[in-house]
Order: sequence, then C-alpha cells, then structure tokens
Amino acid sequence: MIQVIKIGGGVLENEAQRNAFLRQFAAIEGPKVLVHGGGRLATTMAERLGVETHMIDGRRVTDKETLDIVTMVYGGLVNKQVVAQLQTMGVNAIGMTGVDGGWMKSIKRPIKNGIDYGYVGDVTEVNGTHLRTLLDNGLTPVIAPITFSADGLLLNTNADTVASQTAIAMAEAMRRESDEARCNVQLIFCFEKAGVLSNPDDEASVIAKIIPETYTQLKADGMISGGMIPKIDNAFAAIEHGVQSVRITHASNLHGGTVIEQA
Amino acid sequence: MIQVIKIGGGVLENEAQRNAFLRQFAAIEGPKVLVHGGGRLATTMAERLGVETHMIDGRRVTDKETLDIVTMVYGGLVNKQVVAQLQTMGVNAIGMTGVDGGWMKSIKRPIKNGIDYGYVGDVTEVNGTHLRTLLDNGLTPVIAPITFSADGLLLNTNADTVASQTAIAMAEAMRRESDEARCNVQLIFCFEKAGVLSNPDDEASVIAKIIPETYTQLKADGMISGGMIPKIDNAFAAIEHGVQSVRITHASNLHGGTVIEQA
Repeated sequence: MIQVIKIGGGVLENEAQRNAFLRQFAAIEGPKVLVHGGGRLATTMAERLGVETHMIDGRRVTDKETLDIVTMVYGGLVNKQVVAQLQTMGVNAIGMTGVDGGWMKSIKRPIKNGIDYGYVGDVTEVNGTHLRTLLDNGLTPVIAPITFSADGLLLNTNADTVASQTAIAMAEAMRRESDEARCNVQLIFCFEKAGVLSNPDDEASVIAKIIPETYTQLKADGMISGGMIPKIDNAFAAIEHGVQSVRITHASNLHGGTVIEQA
Repeated sequence: MIQVIKIGGGVLENEAQRNAFLRQFAAIEGPKVLVHGGGRLATTMAERLGVETHMIDGRRVTDKETLDIVTMVYGGLVNKQVVAQLQTMGVNAIGMTGVDGGWMKSIKRPIKNGIDYGYVGDVTEVNGTHLRTLLDNGLTPVIAPITFSADGLLLNTNADTVASQTAIAMAEAMRRESDEARCNVQLIFCFEKAGVLSNPDDEASVIAKIIPETYTQLKADGMISGGMIPKIDNAFAAIEHGVQSVRITHASNLHGGTVIEQA
C-alpha cells in the first residue's frame, strides 16, 4: 500500500499543529508521499513585497511576481523546512516540485469566460515511475505544488489536484506492474476541519461517507458548497482512476473524517 | 567520468549568459551535477523585504530572516527556474539541497574570534551514494547550497564548498565501488572571469596551471588574493581527496581557464 497525504497550508503555519502532524506522518509505515501547499505564507510574503493578491472563487490569480513568490515560498522555504524536520524524525524525505525529474507537466490554464488565472497549471501528464523509483530507494517525496509546461514555464498548481494526480499516477504505475484492476493507493486530504461537515459551524457534523449519489444530493441541498466542491471532485477523480480510498479529515486524525467511495 | 560544475550567481542573473551556459551544460555527455549559488538575487530580495545584508570578508552573515530568504531564493526560485530550463533542453534535471535525501549534513559554524556568521553551515558529512543513485537513474542533480544540521536546522553553505564536497563524495563513492586509488571526477568552477588572473584587470592574464608550490608563491606575491583564495583552497581540497582535476574558468568556456593540479 502507498499512502499519499495532502496537508493544507493552514496546518503548516501553526507550529504545534505542524509538529503533531509531521510526527503522525513520520510514524506511518510503508511507502508514503506528502503533498503540501503554503497557503497564507505566500500571501504574507506578497504583502511584504508590496505585491497585491487577487483571488477568484478562492483561487489565487498568479501574475509573474506572484509566481516567483509561490515558487520561493512553497518550493523553497516551506518544502525545505518540512523536509529538514522529517529528516530529524528518521524519514528520508526528499523535497521536490513537478519540475524535478520532470514528472508532473501541465499547460497554462486557458482564459475562459474572460477569467485569466495567469501562471496557473492544469496537469496534463504525470510520470508515476519517477516517484516509484524514489520510493523503491527508501525516499519519501515531499511535494510542493509547482508544475511546468513543455516550454519550461513554471506554473502554480492546486495542491489538492497535485495530490490526487499523484495518487492516480501511483495507482497506474502499480497496475502496470501487477496487472490488477485496482491497486492499493490511499489518498488522504488533511486540513483544519474534522471532515466534510453537513453544518460548517459544527465540527461534530462530519459526514462519514460520501458516494456519487449522496454527493449530488448534498450539493443540491446546499450542504456542500464552496471550496469543498473541488476537493471532493478531486477525490472522486482519484477513485475513478484506480485509487482505492480517499479520506478528507483533520490533520490530527489521519484515519477519521469523511470517506469518499465509488458506491 | 562524472563532471561536477559550479556556476556563480552572477552568471545566472544575466539571462543571455545563463542561457548560453545552460546550453553548454546540457550538451555535456555522461553523468553530471550542477551546483549553483544565487548571489545578488538574495541581496536584492533582502533589500525588498527591508532585511539588512551584512558581509564579513565577502561572506554573508546569515541571521534567521536572511536564512529564510536564501532558502527561498536559492532553494526555490533559482533552483526551480534552472531545472525547468534544463528540462526543456532534454536534461532530466532534479533540483535539490543538501537536506533532500539527507545527503549533505553540516554543523552551524562556531563563533570564532568574536565573529558569528549566524546560520552558516560547515559541511561534516556527504552521502555520495544518494547522488550516485540519482545519476544511475538518468537524473542530473541541480544543487542549491543549503545544508542541514543533525537537529534539523537549515544552514546557508558556501556554494564552492558544496561543489568540492560533492565532487569528493562522488570520487569516494566510485573508489569504494571500483577500488581504484583515483577515480575520474572532474570539478569545474565557472564564473565571470576567464580563470585565475595574475592581473585582475587583464582577462588575458590567465594563469594556465596552479600547483601547490606556485600557489604559495602567487599568494606571497599578492597575485592571488581575496575571494580567489577560498576557491583555490576548495580546489586543492578536492584534488587531495581523489578528484582527478579542477578547473576555474569562464562560464562560456568550460574547458579553458586555470587548471589546479597536485603537482
């Protein structure tokens, strides 16, 4: 089994939460991959540099200066700090972005309905074999969500998407090797909430399980909305492409929260 | 043969020089490693962030804020830009610092004669096998000069030292495998000058070859001074530890410049 775990920027910013999460991550046995964002740290850095942050529907608009900031903060500062911390915990972590080993390629998102997200990447190609080689050598990839285009443009990429595409690529690489229809890759999205909540104000209202039918209903009822929708869409995309299970849960509780399943 | 090439920050800052250098680097056949600094880019970023830069004898004093800047700029921005550019040139580059795969460890430089360089690392341990594994898998390491201590502290490290320690570790790893006394690792320091100059104002005054005896004399005569001394010291350290040849040359002329030899 391979576990792909995505950790939100909010958890990383809080030292106590980060330490607790990384201790849990370090204790996981077997091959594992960590995908992180950087969240507000990039916004803070942009403010200090006098670069304005624009958001559309919760997604950052990435102009050239913002791209540089994201590359520095996610790919440099946060990535190396997390890797160093994991190294002291006995995990042979190796930090990377999609460009390192050329394993995650993307295209610059086309302008649509007049909305230009700038230097944002939509993933087009993932080389799962590269990550497998690292895992086979006892390394634990720690991934910052930067990808790149065929012409060498660095592109800011949604960390949830990077995590689900990573899990899918692992599942596909395993399937090619073992010829099994469904391989054992687990994807866990960790954040500051207990799971997918039916009432955002009530941490006890975790929805234990979401399947496609109930998802449609929950959206129609307005119980799932906003930033949770792309997260769950990413989860279903992973399931449909061979990932065994997806969980959305609090960073302190890797095996709790909400399970996303095919049926 | 493995070639370890160190490129100065000054070359990387100039787009035309950088492109020309990277094309040359891409054309080198066989296993190769690139070590880069970031030079004035970190200073520029520090200025923009209102962080004062202190230098002692040409070496940056690294307080906590400066360490974060160096980690961002060298380990994030410069590293990922170079890797992306090499990828488009057909080189399967993988960006890293000493912390990634835990392969280059250091200690925080002790305060000496009242001088505290801050978060600066003196290299203590290099795992050449890690780099060999990457090279054996067809990857080209691109190394930013950040190392780390046993307690997980990131440390700013002199890029020339990182390059010579990398070359030494490669030579040692090869020697362990083949049991030869001296293995074929070449180290090239590239910068904006034609080589080691006997007259700093005359690019035609390149000293073709330096051996320990002439080095002592050149220093005594004041023909070699300042920042060139630690560079040549690093070169001799590499030679003494099994690196076959060291060259100090202009970034546009990888096979010219000054050769440093044992005798």
